[in-house]
Amino acid sequence: MRNRLATLASVFLLAGTASAKVVTKPVAYEHAGVKLEGFLAYDDAKAAKGKLPGVLVVPEWWGLNAYPKARAEQLAALGYVAFAADMYGAGVTTEDAKKAGELAGAFYGKPLMAERARAGLDQLLKTGLVDPAKVAAIGFCFGGSTAQALAFTGAPLAGIVSFHGGQLKPPAEAAGKIHAKFLLLNGAADPMAKPEDKAAQQRALQDAKIDFQSVDYASALHAFSNADADRLAKANGLTAAIGYNEPAARRSWRAMQVFFEEIFAGR
Amino acid sequence: MRNRLATLASVFLLAGTASAKVVTKPVAYEHAGVKLEGFLAYDDAKAAKGKLPGVLVVPEWWGLNAYPKARAEQLAALGYVAFAADMYGAGVTTEDAKKAGELAGAFYGKPLMAERARAGLDQLLKTGLVDPAKVAAIGFCFGGSTAQALAFTGAPLAGIVSFHGGQLKPPAEAAGKIHAKFLLLNGAADPMAKPEDKAAQQRALQDAKIDFQSVDYASALHAFSNADADRLAKANGLTAAIGYNEPAARRSWRAMQVFFEEIFAGR
Repeated sequence: MRNRLATLASVFLLAGTASAKVVTKPVAYEHAGVKLEGFLAYDDAKAAKGKLPGVLVVPEWWGLNAYPKARAEQLAALGYVAFAADMYGAGVTTEDAKKAGELAGAFYGKPLMAERARAGLDQLLKTGLVDPAKVAAIGFCFGGSTAQALAFTGAPLAGIVSFHGGQLKPPAEAAGKIHAKFLLLNGAADPMAKPEDKAAQQRALQDAKIDFQSVDYASALHAFSNADADRLAKANGLTAAIGYNEPAARRSWRAMQVFFEEIFAGR
Repeated sequence: MRNRLATLASVFLLAGTASAKVVTKPVAYEHAGVKLEGFLAYDDAKAAKGKLPGVLVVPEWWGLNAYPKARAEQLAALGYVAFAADMYGAGVTTEDAKKAGELAGAFYGKPLMAERARAGLDQLLKTGLVDPAKVAAIGFCFGGSTAQALAFTGAPLAGIVSFHGGQLKPPAEAAGKIHAKFLLLNGAADPMAKPEDKAAQQRALQDAKIDFQSVDYASALHAFSNADADRLAKANGLTAAIGYNEPAARRSWRAMQVFFEEIFAGR
């Protein structure tokens, strides 16, 4: 199986880590009658040595475009098996905010959000490359919200990282039952992440006995982690709300790594 | 000078780093007619190899007791020259919250807060052990507020870290002139760190173009970093507000280290 994956895979030699070999491959799967195509990435040399921690990557509302795939490859280079989930359907992406809002809007507040993400998580676990006790979900914007929703269902996650996601609250039945730790990374200037909503979310998470850390990054807008955010914001007339922020992108990625060190060490 | 310091100093062999030798010594100094006694800590072997980054440590409102001294020693073991400042006067500490409030109350909102801290910073710089381009201030509770106030004066700091400090706002004249980066670490359940005050502080820092990161730790109260907090809280009838939180203590200390990696690399 490992060999077949490698044969099918694209192979990248990463700058600065000449010996690391990140293997990527599209993965076809299905959920609730919808044909999906996710994106798997891992370091073949590291995977050959034993099970690795796994990370589910949930895309922004634009769908599974180049950005979450690049993040999956970065995670693979760091030593994780990464699976970028498809939430919308094979090949369905958009750069139009109205269309993206419609696509994402079909999931918010509905069980489908967690269920579709869970189908991606199952694909990650099915690779056989992953230590099932060391699995996290991360996501960007809509994907950050999705990672939260997935954790609220009690999915077998050590933790989740929400990059500029929403401020979701756990359902009443989740209280005391969620062992996934939360790392919530927000732009302090993101008009979609209001201080009062963040405070209300924190209270709700505490009431549900969910372990969280919440970080605000100075002057960062929505989508701060995505170097392509400025272009997409301009194209959609959303520059007041959406924008790339280099320090926030760098710091949040580093915060995620420190968080993984903690949760994958089993603390 | 180095030899004299070493002769006078207490020497500790730290568990797990048998070769590291942390040297500590009391340092007498004076500010505005008040005789002070700070606490210097550094690794002699590391200091012998060249200038090190320096860290000013500002105590909680209890004064320069064992806690900030222990933190200074931990910083020394990490490779920093640490100077725990005396804000109140040589030997002045208390475990009585009323008395602590009076002692700290003489500084809040007054230039004296930054000036007294600056006297400590000068002692750190005077050791000759420190790279003056790589200096930070950290502080706990009252000390976290003091570190912020010191940075607002334009003191030569690469950054400051406030552990469960206040939500100070920069004075109008500071806008655009503060190059110190801020790392603000708060307990999400700290009744003294209200969400609306944190939000107002973030807006004020952004308006002043101060680079910050603000972290909230789930369920952590005031003084979460201090393992002695529960005892002090009980003795003063303050257990609803003050308490130790092991995950928050560990994570905030790690966040400080990651922050130092950034600011001392000159990014």
